[in-house]
Amino acid sequence: MEIPFNKVSFTGKENKYIQTAAKNLDKRSFTLKCAEWIKSYTSVEEVIMTSSATSALELAVRSIWCDKESEIILPSFTFPSAANAVLLAGAQPVFCEIDDNTLCLDIKDFQSKITSKTKAVIIIDYGGSSPHIHQLIEIARKNNLMVIEDSAHAFLSSYKEKPLGSWGDLGIFSFHSTKNIVCGEGGALLINTKNKDIIHHIHQLYHHGTNKVEFLQGKSSSYSWHALGLNPQPSELSMAFLLAQLEESKSLTKQRQKNFLSYYNFFVEYPYKKGIVLFSNIYPDHVSNCHTFYIVFESQDMRDYIIEQLKKRHIYAYFHFVPLHLSPMGKKLGYSPSDFPITNKISEGLLRLPLYNHMTEKECRFVIQSVKEILEAL
Amino acid sequence: MEIPFNKVSFTGKENKYIQTAAKNLDKRSFTLKCAEWIKSYTSVEEVIMTSSATSALELAVRSIWCDKESEIILPSFTFPSAANAVLLAGAQPVFCEIDDNTLCLDIKDFQSKITSKTKAVIIIDYGGSSPHIHQLIEIARKNNLMVIEDSAHAFLSSYKEKPLGSWGDLGIFSFHSTKNIVCGEGGALLINTKNKDIIHHIHQLYHHGTNKVEFLQGKSSSYSWHALGLNPQPSELSMAFLLAQLEESKSLTKQRQKNFLSYYNFFVEYPYKKGIVLFSNIYPDHVSNCHTFYIVFESQDMRDYIIEQLKKRHIYAYFHFVPLHLSPMGKKLGYSPSDFPITNKISEGLLRLPLYNHMTEKECRFVIQSVKEILEAL
Repeated sequence: MEIPFNKVSFTGKENKYIQTAAKNLDKRSFTLKCAEWIKSYTSVEEVIMTSSATSALELAVRSIWCDKESEIILPSFTFPSAANAVLLAGAQPVFCEIDDNTLCLDIKDFQSKITSKTKAVIIIDYGGSSPHIHQLIEIARKNNLMVIEDSAHAFLSSYKEKPLGSWGDLGIFSFHSTKNIVCGEGGALLINTKNKDIIHHIHQLYHHGTNKVEFLQGKSSSYSWHALGLNPQPSELSMAFLLAQLEESKSLTKQRQKNFLSYYNFFVEYPYKKGIVLFSNIYPDHVSNCHTFYIVFESQDMRDYIIEQLKKRHIYAYFHFVPLHLSPMGKKLGYSPSDFPITNKISEGLLRLPLYNHMTEKECRFVIQSVKEILEAL
Repeated sequence: MEIPFNKVSFTGKENKYIQTAAKNLDKRSFTLKCAEWIKSYTSVEEVIMTSSATSALELAVRSIWCDKESEIILPSFTFPSAANAVLLAGAQPVFCEIDDNTLCLDIKDFQSKITSKTKAVIIIDYGGSSPHIHQLIEIARKNNLMVIEDSAHAFLSSYKEKPLGSWGDLGIFSFHSTKNIVCGEGGALLINTKNKDIIHHIHQLYHHGTNKVEFLQGKSSSYSWHALGLNPQPSELSMAFLLAQLEESKSLTKQRQKNFLSYYNFFVEYPYKKGIVLFSNIYPDHVSNCHTFYIVFESQDMRDYIIEQLKKRHIYAYFHFVPLHLSPMGKKLGYSPSDFPITNKISEGLLRLPLYNHMTEKECRFVIQSVKEILEAL
């Protein structure tokens, strides 16, 4: 049996929708329908579909008008997209430690990083969960910071019945092919702020810096270039594929959640946890989309050995993220490897088990049995 | 009969390719095949597929390392994308007049705009033609300028048997749904320079500022964040659609070229040209993709009247471009409305007739007959 790390699921409606979209590429009706679907699901003010989560992040950070003195806090334990978005907007990324239980921003370290120059925080809902999001947002509010919630991993997760992605002022979803609900490359920006200047700025940035939104709303007879702008518009074909997935997203995720639970129950009950520091948790008041099931081992050697042994059995497990402060660019930004010891420890020890929407129980049991055998042969 | 301004054509292979792509979104094999197709057609060093021509332009301008003193020359008569790309890269756009015959950069004005700070020129192959491209490039070479050839309109056009898009150091194609060969949103960056630093920079920018290219080439065991980066990767689904179109692109364009010729012959032979200053031309040594057939009228009133009259007959003709120097952003950049009188005159008078790949001869004749009747009733 070969178990890939990830596989795309199909609902059966994708082809039909794509064929319809292909006939009307200009109309972008699937793009609009995806935005409406997400708006209705999250109850935010407005949703804008983008070519990727990366372009949604750039749109979000640029929309809040930074200058080179502006600081934006984000974890070092993430993909470069968020940090690039900060730099592209001309601001300074300020890296922060993660919590050694949740792998999301560490509350104390976040507080300690806030200065008079801090304009925003990018909260990353790692692996599909964000158990301290309410506390992080409370701190941000007290300090008058904009909250950008990077829910690239967390589409369909919620905390206290409020969807992740809709907790911040601006939220990000990813529908990259590695995510639960996919379209190849695609993302969404959720607008949850009532700040009219920011909303106007987003609209302007989205349409090449033009007043096209006013034109589309009939408030202007033509449109022209008003300000610096981008083009984060997604492909209508991808959006057609995505709508098929969104409409079935809850049922697509069900089997994934079951398999996540099988992994979880195994590790909870398994007595032989030598060398295992941590594994994916189930949090109170929290519904997870079960994007990632991770195990953190006590050393990189052990983690790499397990990955190797699983690979021999044709099971593909992966590590995650070279922390940004350890990267060559992190060094250029003035960070030292010892700045974030928890991030280092987690990054060195973390392994993600295969997990995908239509993974069968048999496949899941095979992974568990293999992990068990490998651990017991150590 | 209703004649839209533009319509997307299908080859019949799009659905099959999209279905194949959907099964392997991660592999990006259609993205690579599109790049190979364009590389083989243009004989450039390398082709990188992008989410849009806009993102290809940003990648191109960023790759040449500008600072805020750097000046990049481009026509005012274009869409905001190219000017945004310059500003996003931190450089200064320097607008230039267009030639009153070709609607491309005016040779003399281009020369006069070159200073010690000029780093590059963006040549725009307006409407699918670029009859003076060799002269423009010669001037750029003499002045040690990088040439970015924006062939967003000009895919499949050539001059002296060398494809447009492949004349500069870097070239841009667009496959936006308004172009001849389409995929919704999509573009390509053609790398024609041998400058290794620029090529390396493009690779790094393309992959979020990481060394992923070295990783994919087996030169590095993992990849991490090395520099500021972007994510201009296209949707694999769009690329599957595009490959179907590329493979049939020459036959898709044939009927368009015929219709263009019908328009052209009508205006050449038509005795009653009162109020018509200019119309699309056929240039020596030039094969055009016939993207646009335009007529320039002597006044905006006349142009707008013709558009209105055509609309009454359900024929949709459009103007093109609010010149950048006339836009609110152009004003902010210090330009005055009187800076480019030819651009103003062309922009005020220009009308684009409906033209699409599978426009029938009957539809084309109906447009011609309608134009004739409207002109004769003036």
